Amino acid sequence: MAKIKPYTLSGMMELLPAEQILMDQIMDTIRRSYAAFGFTALDTPLIESSEILLAKGGGETEKQIYRFEKGDADLSLRFDLTVPLAKYVALHYNDLAFPFKRYQIGKVYRGERVQRGRYREFYQADIDVIGDGKLSIMNDAEIPAVIYTVFSGLGLSNFKIRINNRKILTGLYRMLGLEEKAGDIMRTVDKLDKIGAETVKAILMDDFGVPAEKVDQIIGFISITGSNAEVLEALEAYRGKDETFDTGLEELATVDKYIEGFGVPRENFAIDLTIARGLDYYTGTVYETTLLNHPEVGSVCSGGRYDNLAEYYTDKPLPGVGISIGLTRLFFVLNDQKMLNESMNTAPADVLILPMTQDYSAAVALSTALRQNGLRVQIYAEQKKFKAKMTYADKTGIPYVLFLGEDEIAQNAVSVKDMRTGEQQTLKTEEAAALIGEGLAKLRGQAPVIDR
Amino acid sequence: MAKIKPYTLSGMMELLPAEQILMDQIMDTIRRSYAAFGFTALDTPLIESSEILLAKGGGETEKQIYRFEKGDADLSLRFDLTVPLAKYVALHYNDLAFPFKRYQIGKVYRGERVQRGRYREFYQADIDVIGDGKLSIMNDAEIPAVIYTVFSGLGLSNFKIRINNRKILTGLYRMLGLEEKAGDIMRTVDKLDKIGAETVKAILMDDFGVPAEKVDQIIGFISITGSNAEVLEALEAYRGKDETFDTGLEELATVDKYIEGFGVPRENFAIDLTIARGLDYYTGTVYETTLLNHPEVGSVCSGGRYDNLAEYYTDKPLPGVGISIGLTRLFFVLNDQKMLNESMNTAPADVLILPMTQDYSAAVALSTALRQNGLRVQIYAEQKKFKAKMTYADKTGIPYVLFLGEDEIAQNAVSVKDMRTGEQQTLKTEEAAALIGEGLAKLRGQAPVIDR
Repeated sequence: MAKIKPYTLSGMMELLPAEQILMDQIMDTIRRSYAAFGFTALDTPLIESSEILLAKGGGETEKQIYRFEKGDADLSLRFDLTVPLAKYVALHYNDLAFPFKRYQIGKVYRGERVQRGRYREFYQADIDVIGDGKLSIMNDAEIPAVIYTVFSGLGLSNFKIRINNRKILTGLYRMLGLEEKAGDIMRTVDKLDKIGAETVKAILMDDFGVPAEKVDQIIGFISITGSNAEVLEALEAYRGKDETFDTGLEELATVDKYIEGFGVPRENFAIDLTIARGLDYYTGTVYETTLLNHPEVGSVCSGGRYDNLAEYYTDKPLPGVGISIGLTRLFFVLNDQKMLNESMNTAPADVLILPMTQDYSAAVALSTALRQNGLRVQIYAEQKKFKAKMTYADKTGIPYVLFLGEDEIAQNAVSVKDMRTGEQQTLKTEEAAALIGEGLAKLRGQAPVIDR
Repeated sequence: MAKIKPYTLSGMMELLPAEQILMDQIMDTIRRSYAAFGFTALDTPLIESSEILLAKGGGETEKQIYRFEKGDADLSLRFDLTVPLAKYVALHYNDLAFPFKRYQIGKVYRGERVQRGRYREFYQADIDVIGDGKLSIMNDAEIPAVIYTVFSGLGLSNFKIRINNRKILTGLYRMLGLEEKAGDIMRTVDKLDKIGAETVKAILMDDFGVPAEKVDQIIGFISITGSNAEVLEALEAYRGKDETFDTGLEELATVDKYIEGFGVPRENFAIDLTIARGLDYYTGTVYETTLLNHPEVGSVCSGGRYDNLAEYYTDKPLPGVGISIGLTRLFFVLNDQKMLNESMNTAPADVLILPMTQDYSAAVALSTALRQNGLRVQIYAEQKKFKAKMTYADKTGIPYVLFLGEDEIAQNAVSVKDMRTGEQQTLKTEEAAALIGEGLAKLRGQAPVIDR
């Protein structure tokens, strides 16, 4: 038969088994962290009607969409998890309790140009809190704690959650009489880290016609740094000139006030007035998260407050605040930077039983007993040479191999080989189970990422 | 702004939060059961090149496929998890250890006619063991134990795993000189349960020209029933006439021999000679699983042994054995039959804190402490009337509400309301955490499905 050469489409991440287990560990950590803050899991279809998904229309995203017809239906694959959430909340409004806190970890699709570390199919891991009409600033204050729980749970400590408030920026630009240029200015200032202050100045003056004196005031403002208390104090000097600014300052101070109570160490959190987030729909608090050893990666977890989640589908005002982790890209970066913890147990099983007898009854009974003890167990039943069997154990990384021959069976015992130490001993079955349980508990105590 | 009426495409399951948590519980049970037998998780792209996915070509499936172009690529959404596995094993052959045991729980797509309980986007939950050249029959023997672990773990006891071996059927039809009609005969006999013996007879004679005398022999054969020991003994009468039959009988006897050792109660397992499975590629053991109270549902977990997983992509012979659970349909049936356990904790959080003070510092600190105790905690921070706050707790089903006012804070205490009993008491924080922990442990002890 003529063969078709197997391949996976470019831009699609497909992992080998050991890598997949690390990915799943990371996903589990995110899931548990989100759930700890009372976010509930959602799972929406990957396919939506194009008229729903593209209600907002236009923009770069539309060109990247996987859109196709099936029968007479015009369909698209979701390109983020926010639009499906907007549809979900508008559609199921009467069945939901507000504030509605949901998390979703799912694949999304964007037909971007393929580059190293860029994916066309990738996971996003999002949380959002949606209010019915109003939403307390306390929800914004909680978000950094969620981010901290995720990243410290992964094994990282060297990261910084940066926040700002768009109302402060909007208010500032209004004070300067630049409100009509506020969007352009914020998008430019947002690039400060990448392009430097001089280029920012030049763009503001040349491209957007901001007078030199006002450019200096803007640069002066975004140069306010120091501890959060110092930054907040400096901002007090602007108070009373613009209502939106004042509200933004209150909100920022509130978020800052509860940070430590939420368990976030001061060193992992900073007010940063340069952050605006490119997306136009953020209207209040904005978040970015950077790995301090890998600033070139950019923000690994971003989001913010928005006024109206579902304006394309409903008249109900539904303000929200949320964040998104680009999980597939994050995994790529961690792998690329050799930050995945390879000493984790990434084997398909905890125990491999090698029966040394013709009849497998004893091996089968042992496997059942060990499973009832919570262990993941394989029986190796292929007719292979001993060496091939051990190669299987090595290649899969299964931590314990149990030999079961006539002698062991007669003694209700088993020979246990710890594949990491090479140590082998014959033990009663219950002793073996206890030994393995202890060894595995140590392996399980590890985090999936090593900070470096 | 003109609104677009929100809707979800027909044939796509989209659950409300409480249902989703039950679905996730069911998925977790399946995942844990698969992992206990040493199957490793895989996650392959939902989109594959059409030439890969349709290598086999033809058939009903091809018409149902979601196929589309993006740029100059001809793409398709996967319609099962088996073809992507075949591609994966052929592609990554050198990096895998064999037997390769993988599970995958993922969405697949088929543009079927929309009917109640039929989905176009649905989860399959598959396991397969793939051998390199050969694969021991012990792998077939283990599969019923996996099925039993899944369904008993879900909370079911009234189900039957039925097995047969295609080699026995192939051998029988060869003995009868009907090998060329074996496929047609097996597909007909497979419908015995649905259409009855008389119709089967008529189809065999009229449509496939099987002589009346041989039809009687076939009916006589598939009428062999009784305990597994009785059936195996009756089959001994056919031994020695056909080599394939004899191999099939050995295999079936081996699978039967180890069933109890693998922990499967006899009442959940039966040899059933009428089972053939429609698919042509099964060549040995075949499995079906039926809910005894709901025979109309058909098999909820099926599969079997095949000779060659990836013949379209590689010359390497890769025999395998596997099963698939149609998870979305199963969930629909369980929901429809009111078999989902509604007394499970399907709330987004375990605890809702209602701060009764202006300053939220105490509430925030309490939420952090409770989370560090492993609880899922929400703070209700919206400016609402007391009644609205309690309605939120009711509607979400959060089992414990904690009131935190000046008095409680002064005493380092909290008022705990158990929403299921209505009981309320003021306790020291650690006592409250312990009380809640105990209550939740009881809730967690439940299975997601109630057998009825």
